[in-house]
Amino acid sequence: MEFTVDQIASLLNGEVKGDGGVKINMLAKIQDAKPGQLSFFSNPKYENHLYSTEASAVIVKKDFEPRRPIKASLILVEDPYSSFTILLEEYHKFLSYQKSGTEDPSFIGQNSTVGADVYRGAFSYIGNNVKIGNNVKIYPHVYIGDNVTVGDNTILNAGVKLYTNTIVGNHCVIHSGVVIGSDGFGFAPQSDGTYKTIPQMGNVIIGDNVDIGANTVIDCATFHGDSTKINNGVKLDNLIQIAHNVEIGKNTVIAAQTGVSGSTKIGDNCVIAGQVGIAGHIVLANKTSIGAKAGLGKSIKDENAKLMGSPAFDVKEYYRAYAEFKNLPDLSVRLKQLEEKVLNLPTFQEKQ
Amino acid sequence: MEFTVDQIASLLNGEVKGDGGVKINMLAKIQDAKPGQLSFFSNPKYENHLYSTEASAVIVKKDFEPRRPIKASLILVEDPYSSFTILLEEYHKFLSYQKSGTEDPSFIGQNSTVGADVYRGAFSYIGNNVKIGNNVKIYPHVYIGDNVTVGDNTILNAGVKLYTNTIVGNHCVIHSGVVIGSDGFGFAPQSDGTYKTIPQMGNVIIGDNVDIGANTVIDCATFHGDSTKINNGVKLDNLIQIAHNVEIGKNTVIAAQTGVSGSTKIGDNCVIAGQVGIAGHIVLANKTSIGAKAGLGKSIKDENAKLMGSPAFDVKEYYRAYAEFKNLPDLSVRLKQLEEKVLNLPTFQEKQ
Amino acid sequence: MEFTVDQIASLLNGEVKGDGGVKINMLAKIQDAKPGQLSFFSNPKYENHLYSTEASAVIVKKDFEPRRPIKASLILVEDPYSSFTILLEEYHKFLSYQKSGTEDPSFIGQNSTVGADVYRGAFSYIGNNVKIGNNVKIYPHVYIGDNVTVGDNTILNAGVKLYTNTIVGNHCVIHSGVVIGSDGFGFAPQSDGTYKTIPQMGNVIIGDNVDIGANTVIDCATFHGDSTKINNGVKLDNLIQIAHNVEIGKNTVIAAQTGVSGSTKIGDNCVIAGQVGIAGHIVLANKTSIGAKAGLGKSIKDENAKLMGSPAFDVKEYYRAYAEFKNLPDLSVRLKQLEEKVLNLPTFQEKQ
Repeated sequence: MEFTVDQIASLLNGEVKGDGGVKINMLAKIQDAKPGQLSFFSNPKYENHLYSTEASAVIVKKDFEPRRPIKASLILVEDPYSSFTILLEEYHKFLSYQKSGTEDPSFIGQNSTVGADVYRGAFSYIGNNVKIGNNVKIYPHVYIGDNVTVGDNTILNAGVKLYTNTIVGNHCVIHSGVVIGSDGFGFAPQSDGTYKTIPQMGNVIIGDNVDIGANTVIDCATFHGDSTKINNGVKLDNLIQIAHNVEIGKNTVIAAQTGVSGSTKIGDNCVIAGQVGIAGHIVLANKTSIGAKAGLGKSIKDENAKLMGSPAFDVKEYYRAYAEFKNLPDLSVRLKQLEEKVLNLPTFQEKQ
Repeated sequence: MEFTVDQIASLLNGEVKGDGGVKINMLAKIQDAKPGQLSFFSNPKYENHLYSTEASAVIVKKDFEPRRPIKASLILVEDPYSSFTILLEEYHKFLSYQKSGTEDPSFIGQNSTVGADVYRGAFSYIGNNVKIGNNVKIYPHVYIGDNVTVGDNTILNAGVKLYTNTIVGNHCVIHSGVVIGSDGFGFAPQSDGTYKTIPQMGNVIIGDNVDIGANTVIDCATFHGDSTKINNGVKLDNLIQIAHNVEIGKNTVIAAQTGVSGSTKIGDNCVIAGQVGIAGHIVLANKTSIGAKAGLGKSIKDENAKLMGSPAFDVKEYYRAYAEFKNLPDLSVRLKQLEEKVLNLPTFQEKQ
Repeated sequence: MEFTVDQIASLLNGEVKGDGGVKINMLAKIQDAKPGQLSFFSNPKYENHLYSTEASAVIVKKDFEPRRPIKASLILVEDPYSSFTILLEEYHKFLSYQKSGTEDPSFIGQNSTVGADVYRGAFSYIGNNVKIGNNVKIYPHVYIGDNVTVGDNTILNAGVKLYTNTIVGNHCVIHSGVVIGSDGFGFAPQSDGTYKTIPQMGNVIIGDNVDIGANTVIDCATFHGDSTKINNGVKLDNLIQIAHNVEIGKNTVIAAQTGVSGSTKIGDNCVIAGQVGIAGHIVLANKTSIGAKAGLGKSIKDENAKLMGSPAFDVKEYYRAYAEFKNLPDLSVRLKQLEEKVLNLPTFQEKQ
């Protein structure tokens, strides 16, 4: 894959300053770029890199005025960061679509349909009554249970497991080892101390443009007709636990190793850090922000709350309290000294 | 699958009130049920749903006296909740036993035996000297190492991995991505700062009626002849870590993302919440209860202890201490004010 | 596998006291050993076991003087613990090398090369342009993407997934369900609240003698030419999250369920406990030690720091502060009492 600076500028609706015929075969950070590579400059803090970079071309802001000569060709655009993002996406798309066709052996059950330009890797398994959209990439060792639906342009990386009745939308990327639709954790206690398994008969519905990180697990809903729902644009990191009947609002982002307990509803555009624990049967307002390792036990009604601690409360208050926590041994000593002083006051002793 | 209300009542030893010929094809929650569906009513809080439900039939307590007319047929039983559980289990059994036979290609090694009515999914792997019981369901991409034993009626979902010498009991459900028998984390420090791997040569023994959630890991014991043991009736949620030589007592329930360090023994009927960390080489008494995110560092000798915090202590005391923690900035200011007041006391100053 | 005591002593450069012709077929702990088994005695605390053990032979220190008669044959060596470790390793090597050849069906792409004595399990997948070294063991359901390199003597257990461009060194052991090279978690926020996926185009480089526990995930670096690096001798436990662009220094050990955020550099010979969270873009000095469940938010510049808490600080100070935390309700009551006393002081009231 090799393009000229002119070709790239044309894709970005940008203007070329310098040699437009230079060939580009790679994207790189401005401080690391080598000849033949393209980078971008957006943060003024890194302006020095612009004058020393070995990149063959750099994307810069239209109105940028260099203070020193620049060796690289420049591509002038409105917003260098978003232009660079477009290129990264194009490159990614190119890579993603390299695979196609069906490798042998692979398995497909009865009454299942597969769209155009689908890749079916060796040892991939498609059950009965499955519907696979166009341009879907099914890598080796993917398991797709009966009655599953997968939308267009979705990538199922090696070893993804989709239980029966799961629905996955369009343009999703699901990483290796992800399990979707496993049984929720529901057991009815019996009088003899044992538990009876409550069958989990619902499913999981994944919206469009959802990314799910490696080895994350999403359990199915308990009752038939109910669904655990991951709405459009949600981004889940690796090793996350989503319990039965949870709903996650659109464009919410959750970092690695966080767990969400059963029947909780998380709003839209929330930002949840890593290793957070969220209790069951609560509701989080839109735009809730939760700091790393927090434990959330109660519903959050107001939007834009920022929380920390376990049980979690306002992040600023948490940091204030934690500063005093570190100081507790000193505070304890001072309290003891004060008690002794007060007890030794002559007037106080007389009064007693 | 369709049954009449009379047929279902007979299975539950219940009495029909209303039309016993109505046909039922699904179970549902009372507030969501549609015609053709069966629900149950047990919690008085939801009595209103009983009068408005579209369910064709509802299971109710024998002595229940409706205050308004009910459209649905009723099935009168001793305990509606447990009757409903029985139906769910029957339904689950029905679903579980849909799969049977051997899909191609699948792999089986030498000297391995497989019981009656076993399902062997495509791309499932059975090594040498393996014993598989009756009615076992082995989904696609399951790996069963050499010398493994699996009891009757156990379900191994897609992608389960059982290392060499693992023993799994009867009536277990093991979910996708579970790894059983991987090496324990044991390394002997050397004088040059490197580590030598201590071979892990024991195995894992899983009892009967054990459920294990997706992507949970259970390491094998260190020495040959030793076992990591998960006893009868244990329920493990998703993404749990069980280290080498751990033993978990019967009917203990552990929620998602909890980790148990090496050689720890957990008693019977314990309830352990999510994201808990339990140190190595400790012993927890029966019926120990541990709150979410707790870190347990010491053995618990008395039964029925309830713990929280990290390091964990009594849950009530934890919440009292945490209430004061949130209040620490105020407490700190008040201490400072008091110090100033006491220092400014005239008699106190004279005495100094 | 059966050896005489003489043969084993010769392997260990040890001296036999007692019957050198006794046959040994197993290693075991001194308190559990049965006839035909070999154990070691090193900790004086366990001396009594030496006189009662049923082991056929025991490895002891050269200068050890028994106080009572011992039934077992003795092998006298400089360091019984390290001698026993050598035997365990030999035994492990023996077991590891049992598998060889290629089971059917397995998949191999174009331009890929495989060394001598490689095991390729059934349903294992090797993509295009892959290089596999000598003595590599590729268990069933392993996925090796295009352009991957795997060094000599490395074991890839069942179901390991290596994404495109991953490099794995020599003598590594990678456990089931491990995912290496999945996309880092990078999304560019857009003005409408949605996110654009930032393509992750770097790779992962794993050094020599690295052990990686089951279901652990290591994401690839963001930019082409960058790598997430796990250096020689690193030992990672189960269910760990390593984000994009992280570097872990040699001989660092990390326990289960810990997470390391993007672009963080961890030094050499660090010891990091379980369920720890480490923020992104920080640097940890060599020999940093982090306690269980800690949350590390800042770089650590001095070697040998020991940290605890979230946010983490010095472990001794943490335990002091935590002791006072447990005592907070008492401290709060005492402060209130003191306030009342001071307010009631007659001189104090007059002054007001």
